[in-house]
Amino acid sequence: MKLNIDNLLAVNNKHGLRQKDINAQGSNIEKFLNQIDDRNQGFYSFIDEKEFIEKIEAYSREIKNKFKDIIVLGIGGSALGTISLKQSLTHLFENELINRKHPKLHVLDNISPDLIKAIEDIIDFKKTLFIVVSKSGNTPEILAQYFYFLNKIKKRKLNPQKHFVFITDPKKGHLRKIANSENIKAFVVPENVGGRFSVLSAVGLLPAKLIGVDIKKLINGAKIMRDRFRSLDVLKNLSFQIATIQYLLSKKGKTIQVMMPYSQHLIRFSDWYRQLLSESIGKAKNNKGENVNIGLTPVNAIGVTDQHSQLQLYNEGPNDKFFMFISVNKFRTNVKIPNLYPNNKDVAFLKGVSFNKLFQTEMKATAKSLSRNNRPNIFIEIEEVDEVSLGQLFMLFECSVAFLGEFYNINAFDQPGVELSKLLTKEYLINGYK
Amino acid sequence: MKLNIDNLLAVNNKHGLRQKDINAQGSNIEKFLNQIDDRNQGFYSFIDEKEFIEKIEAYSREIKNKFKDIIVLGIGGSALGTISLKQSLTHLFENELINRKHPKLHVLDNISPDLIKAIEDIIDFKKTLFIVVSKSGNTPEILAQYFYFLNKIKKRKLNPQKHFVFITDPKKGHLRKIANSENIKAFVVPENVGGRFSVLSAVGLLPAKLIGVDIKKLINGAKIMRDRFRSLDVLKNLSFQIATIQYLLSKKGKTIQVMMPYSQHLIRFSDWYRQLLSESIGKAKNNKGENVNIGLTPVNAIGVTDQHSQLQLYNEGPNDKFFMFISVNKFRTNVKIPNLYPNNKDVAFLKGVSFNKLFQTEMKATAKSLSRNNRPNIFIEIEEVDEVSLGQLFMLFECSVAFLGEFYNINAFDQPGVELSKLLTKEYLINGYK
Repeated sequence: MKLNIDNLLAVNNKHGLRQKDINAQGSNIEKFLNQIDDRNQGFYSFIDEKEFIEKIEAYSREIKNKFKDIIVLGIGGSALGTISLKQSLTHLFENELINRKHPKLHVLDNISPDLIKAIEDIIDFKKTLFIVVSKSGNTPEILAQYFYFLNKIKKRKLNPQKHFVFITDPKKGHLRKIANSENIKAFVVPENVGGRFSVLSAVGLLPAKLIGVDIKKLINGAKIMRDRFRSLDVLKNLSFQIATIQYLLSKKGKTIQVMMPYSQHLIRFSDWYRQLLSESIGKAKNNKGENVNIGLTPVNAIGVTDQHSQLQLYNEGPNDKFFMFISVNKFRTNVKIPNLYPNNKDVAFLKGVSFNKLFQTEMKATAKSLSRNNRPNIFIEIEEVDEVSLGQLFMLFECSVAFLGEFYNINAFDQPGVELSKLLTKEYLINGYK
Repeated sequence: MKLNIDNLLAVNNKHGLRQKDINAQGSNIEKFLNQIDDRNQGFYSFIDEKEFIEKIEAYSREIKNKFKDIIVLGIGGSALGTISLKQSLTHLFENELINRKHPKLHVLDNISPDLIKAIEDIIDFKKTLFIVVSKSGNTPEILAQYFYFLNKIKKRKLNPQKHFVFITDPKKGHLRKIANSENIKAFVVPENVGGRFSVLSAVGLLPAKLIGVDIKKLINGAKIMRDRFRSLDVLKNLSFQIATIQYLLSKKGKTIQVMMPYSQHLIRFSDWYRQLLSESIGKAKNNKGENVNIGLTPVNAIGVTDQHSQLQLYNEGPNDKFFMFISVNKFRTNVKIPNLYPNNKDVAFLKGVSFNKLFQTEMKATAKSLSRNNRPNIFIEIEEVDEVSLGQLFMLFECSVAFLGEFYNINAFDQPGVELSKLLTKEYLINGYK
């Protein structure tokens, strides 16, 4: 995995950066690493434990062939990583395949009444496993979903101990209490690992394992990137470079972060990143308690699709954005475009071109059109979308927001701004809406 | 359908608006309507024609029961409306239903090689209809897809005239030429209707009809809203009110537009709106040819899901956003949360509450938390997600961007900023990337 910043360097200095601007920040790495370690080592250290992987693999063997459908009841950090893992590492139409090796996976990350009801039309409760995921164990939406499906399971005289498994805090919260009192199997979200940093824990790994993902390779990928994150050499430390670029560009008014992978398998990865960046860096107060209202607004896009939706704005609108392309060298397949109209000059440029070539050429052309319009952009280049690269990508961005928090002198690991809405929900439910 | 701006009025005047600010702009309606009519009447007038609906319905009868799968080859404005129609008006797991009345619909809106290949694993070419959609008839990605699948059809000795139908310009372009020379059935995108305004033409209506949508009701809904768009009364003219609010708030630094529907059926509607807003309003030059780099950046979100992903940023980050909630009064079903732990005080607030109630209460609480943090937000309230309301919503936003173009004195109907990327693609394919 490497970074290509040619198009960033090509942009004029009002809107872009020079290599020396980035290198100059390298002197901060050591200090920032120490600060991050004081704040939270959990998010990158738990991947060294082996026991949780063994437990997941043992459970996977235990329930092999028992279920046709797996429903994850989870929201936010309990859902987005799993959705991304499925999109990235299984068939693009996985749930519509007829001959399948693994159960279907659905992530029920909302409580829209239509959604709760609709899922019942496509599952057989007798053959369905529910994975209930809540770090705190108290998420109202997830408890409500759990109550609902528990009731359905009980009404069918099925055994909840067989049809439910929890992933939650090792000690605290409502789900843990129920797990203990009703003897429901429960995996652990490590204590100091917040939801948005939990994809490489049981939260992402358990459902991934059950649909055939090689979770050891995922962890291996994550370790490779974690080790680069500990490097004091700015050119090795990809997560530091990304944070540096984001920080310096935000000072030049680029506060909207567009992540635009060119691979259909990564379309949901940017959704995972949206939460990570929004919740980690969107903060009212800095570490001194001063009002700062810091934040970068993530925008998800996908190539080439969003060239036909967003590119007009990106090229001509306000110069308030920074673009991160994720480029893939090798796809699972090479698909030729047949030359069916050899005498037609209008389509001669497609002659002998594959979809692979067209796809990647459009990416380069789009990026170049942006830099010609002085819109800073970089490429994160991966060899292919597989377990190892995905493990690296998750860890890369987790580490980069950790660094970014230190640049802004904020706490990247809390989320105080969601409490008011939760309080008001309870108040309105109890006392009515005024 | 109505607008609720209570939370906008509640925000302090540095960040919000007063009712009189909005009403005062009402004097512009007539002038703006005249300007829009000079620029483009096509986008709202073609819905009065009846012939194209009859043609779609006749074709639908003709091919009844012949196909199991429908694949739309389209991108941008040729795809996003159709995706939204499917999400909004069919079952949420439509393609996984076992007993189905209508063919499955897939929209292939990318050329990622993995995607092109993956679709083949789940279709039977003998039972598949391809709808090839390109307004210009020259979109390289769509031509490439067409060549690819045409080749597959021919190799199987199937008849292309039966397996392909086009939707394209009535006269110009490559697809129209092929339709004429090879006798392929071709529907029309009205001449002065751009891709992003075409959802209510055959582009959206043909695939929608084939999966069981009542397209006459869609058009009826659109007409209701179009008539409100022609009203000089600011309080009746919802699209003018929305444009006014967006314009005035953008002057106060709210240049990021968050659309956050609270209905799983509307999760893809915001994707459609993203293109409409980005391409219509993201412009380098105004009508005088001056450099302005105008643009509002759309962000898609969905309640309650993104409360657990984006809300931290929305409440505490920079005050640079304006929030449009779409609220739904009535869902297809009412789903109760069973009271399985009557003695547990922690979950007592869920007692007697339905998912419907919890869902809508969280919406109100989230919106209130935003206005308490001086983040302006409004509700677009619809009765339920059905053909009539969806027709209204499409037209509401099309008309609002038309007005918005006049506020900014730009052309909302062109998209010059995507040309450079297209030119560079051809150049790189022919001469290589440098």
